[in-house]
Amino acid sequence: MAKNNQKMVEEITAMDVDFAKWYTDICKKAELVSYTSVKGCMVIRPYGYAIWENIQRILDGMFRETGHENVNMPMFIPESLLQKEKDHVEGFAPEVAWVTHGGSDKLEERLCVRPTSETLFCEHYADIIHSYRDLPKLYNQWVSVVRWEKTTRPFLRSREFLWQEGHTIHATADEAMEETIRMLNVYSDFCEKSLAIPVVKGRKTESDKFAGAVATYCIEALMHDGKALQAGTSHYFGDGFAKAFEIEYTDKENQRRNPHQTSWGVTTRLIGAIIMTHGDDNGLVLPPAVAPKQVVIVPVAMHKPGVLEKAQELLAQLKDAGIRVVLDDSENSPGWKFAEYEMKGVPVRLEIGPRDIENGVCVLAPRVGGEKRTAALGETLPETVQAMLCEVHDAMYQKALENMEKHTYACTSMEEITRVLKEKGDGFVKAMWCGDEACEDKVKEVTGVGSRCIPEQQEHIAETCVCCGKPAKQMLYWGKAY
Amino acid sequence: MAKNNQKMVEEITAMDVDFAKWYTDICKKAELVSYTSVKGCMVIRPYGYAIWENIQRILDGMFRETGHENVNMPMFIPESLLQKEKDHVEGFAPEVAWVTHGGSDKLEERLCVRPTSETLFCEHYADIIHSYRDLPKLYNQWVSVVRWEKTTRPFLRSREFLWQEGHTIHATADEAMEETIRMLNVYSDFCEKSLAIPVVKGRKTESDKFAGAVATYCIEALMHDGKALQAGTSHYFGDGFAKAFEIEYTDKENQRRNPHQTSWGVTTRLIGAIIMTHGDDNGLVLPPAVAPKQVVIVPVAMHKPGVLEKAQELLAQLKDAGIRVVLDDSENSPGWKFAEYEMKGVPVRLEIGPRDIENGVCVLAPRVGGEKRTAALGETLPETVQAMLCEVHDAMYQKALENMEKHTYACTSMEEITRVLKEKGDGFVKAMWCGDEACEDKVKEVTGVGSRCIPEQQEHIAETCVCCGKPAKQMLYWGKAY
Repeated sequence: MAKNNQKMVEEITAMDVDFAKWYTDICKKAELVSYTSVKGCMVIRPYGYAIWENIQRILDGMFRETGHENVNMPMFIPESLLQKEKDHVEGFAPEVAWVTHGGSDKLEERLCVRPTSETLFCEHYADIIHSYRDLPKLYNQWVSVVRWEKTTRPFLRSREFLWQEGHTIHATADEAMEETIRMLNVYSDFCEKSLAIPVVKGRKTESDKFAGAVATYCIEALMHDGKALQAGTSHYFGDGFAKAFEIEYTDKENQRRNPHQTSWGVTTRLIGAIIMTHGDDNGLVLPPAVAPKQVVIVPVAMHKPGVLEKAQELLAQLKDAGIRVVLDDSENSPGWKFAEYEMKGVPVRLEIGPRDIENGVCVLAPRVGGEKRTAALGETLPETVQAMLCEVHDAMYQKALENMEKHTYACTSMEEITRVLKEKGDGFVKAMWCGDEACEDKVKEVTGVGSRCIPEQQEHIAETCVCCGKPAKQMLYWGKAY
Repeated sequence: MAKNNQKMVEEITAMDVDFAKWYTDICKKAELVSYTSVKGCMVIRPYGYAIWENIQRILDGMFRETGHENVNMPMFIPESLLQKEKDHVEGFAPEVAWVTHGGSDKLEERLCVRPTSETLFCEHYADIIHSYRDLPKLYNQWVSVVRWEKTTRPFLRSREFLWQEGHTIHATADEAMEETIRMLNVYSDFCEKSLAIPVVKGRKTESDKFAGAVATYCIEALMHDGKALQAGTSHYFGDGFAKAFEIEYTDKENQRRNPHQTSWGVTTRLIGAIIMTHGDDNGLVLPPAVAPKQVVIVPVAMHKPGVLEKAQELLAQLKDAGIRVVLDDSENSPGWKFAEYEMKGVPVRLEIGPRDIENGVCVLAPRVGGEKRTAALGETLPETVQAMLCEVHDAMYQKALENMEKHTYACTSMEEITRVLKEKGDGFVKAMWCGDEACEDKVKEVTGVGSRCIPEQQEHIAETCVCCGKPAKQMLYWGKAY
């Protein structure tokens, strides 16, 4: 036991020593993923997949509440279909996997494994949309997609990844734009309320938008190491795809028109965001809303009469109250169990021993945000536990928000950007911008910050562009991107 | 309205005229699927996908209750990995899709899109299984797989299809065999209790088992046209894969051993089974347990005061009771709505009009199995509706069972098989068998029945093999296969 315990703690690299190594240690030791012989493709193990299932369940409910229906498109896109929208194919063709043979026969036309499904949805829309009565269509699918990345990391950048892609089509541009922003807000609400991750909401610059989009909106989160992570995107397409795919409908005045489209997605990358926002040197810290196990019951002096029975009783009581709870009645020592579930990020630990039972209490220990304390047994226990889960969520959110605020710097010159990042560590840089792409490129080149986003919440930091000194149009958020 | 109504009814080919055409008409008119430009790959539309989501929800619950955890494996298998188990590669290599390029680069090794994932699970097992403490592992995944079929039909045989594949690994052969049968029973329970489809449980013959399996168990259902459909399979692998992939564990006596494996799966084919078991000339008939909408409320004389309000009240009442219910308050005529929801297979229609409200009743019409009748409004209504949903299920199951019994023929000679099938129509043929593969081939060749299964419930029909006249070992079920 002691040996196991020691081994476990030893094997997680400290965050400050090597953040990248800490990250992959967590992924492996907490049994979230396992590598395979195909580079960039991973096994998502039960503990990791259960986090994704919780993310799916909550988001799927939010999508349904906003009127969306799930569908399933094929995974293959014929080369000619991918090529129909010029910008789109240019963006994606260099990074798709090509199927060239079915069994021993060479295919007449190559098929790519979908990197995203706009083209498939467009082909389908052209098939089923004829009149204004057929609009809008509000679709979503939960599938995996493939992008042949050179550099890969579990969850953050993999060749195959799981995601949802929403695709909607509307009679008017206004409706489509409203949908684009609605789903951006769904994502930011989800990140804050379910993942305890504060985000910056904004729009991508022209040079950085999705291939084929008129405008790309995004949410950006700041990781523990000060790097920025794009956590979700929502695209407004106007009628560009509709024109390329000849999707038309007859409006109420019997005129033929092109409808307007959107798409939006989040991926298993969110699990990477959870790890890097909340994790610490003891391991994972999971937001209660998506933790596979919200509570672990650890019996102390398990072999004393009545302890295991009481533990089982509490297990049943909390389960009945809808709490995701597990009882570890294995022969491992309580100390080993404490370290194990801490490493696995279980939000609340419940300890129960002979003396506790005598006193009619148990001990509740939050993974973060407070000291452990006693709680009365009896019918109020589920409420007490729920309240602690809420506390853990709030503490996680506050900590992440403070980290983001502490590492967000308003800068008025490129020298200042370089100096501040060096002195205070990586983070978000707020700086004014003239709107010129040349300045974007130059800031990136000189200071090394590549991620950029025009935040919804604009501030007036200075009069002039941080790069060229000409009058500024907007404030940008800059960061080093994952 | 009238035109629409007429059009809709006209467009479904009668079952007796052309069963295959009737089937594809249903798939399209009920908006289950839509074709794409990739042969054999379909769009599963919201109404079809919702059936699959209900199937997933129920089965996933049954898998969890039997101790299984969900995981996610990559979709790609390197050619060398697929080749590790000799029988397996021979079975699958001729029908896989090959990825040869990532972007513009040729891959060093071809990757196939998974036709099934035994090889990936084996690679993972070898990585994570070391000791008897690591066993068993009881895994499942919900994904899509690809098999490059020549002839394709929606749901029944498509190049990409959705499925679940369970994969388990155990210390002993006995445990693995127990699991194989346990999951076969889960499938047959599910088919009977949730899909109202009676099945024959049995084992495949040696010549017909899964590539790489020691034994393949299956459930077979009889469709309305008398053809057999394999609805699910459960495979026992022994330690063949473990040896090929060098999966070993240390047992309690410190001996190195190979573990034993199983796999089992059902697919979107089940939706095809639902259509062809229960459907009629008016359209789909959906089992209440998986119907996207269990009840449709159709207001009659909708514009009379109070009707729509009452309809909305009933909608809320039934929803609160956990019934999947929809209210159609569109301007279409009640007659059009009746035909539409009948075509879509909604199990129960609830009609409510001014006179009903006056009398404190509504009208409930089951899709099959009885006449429509009045039901009292008030707090008992959800119970009354639930009872009718149960009635519909029972009626569907009985009808399907009678069809199966009526079309199951005990035969003692090949001449009898040919004659009975000709006279009474396609169906299951029960016949004795000596166990010799040559006789299997000959029966198939002479009588045209290709599907065969050794049923769990054996009967003693005759002393001798239906083909060669030698002493019989077992009774086989024969059928023409989908």
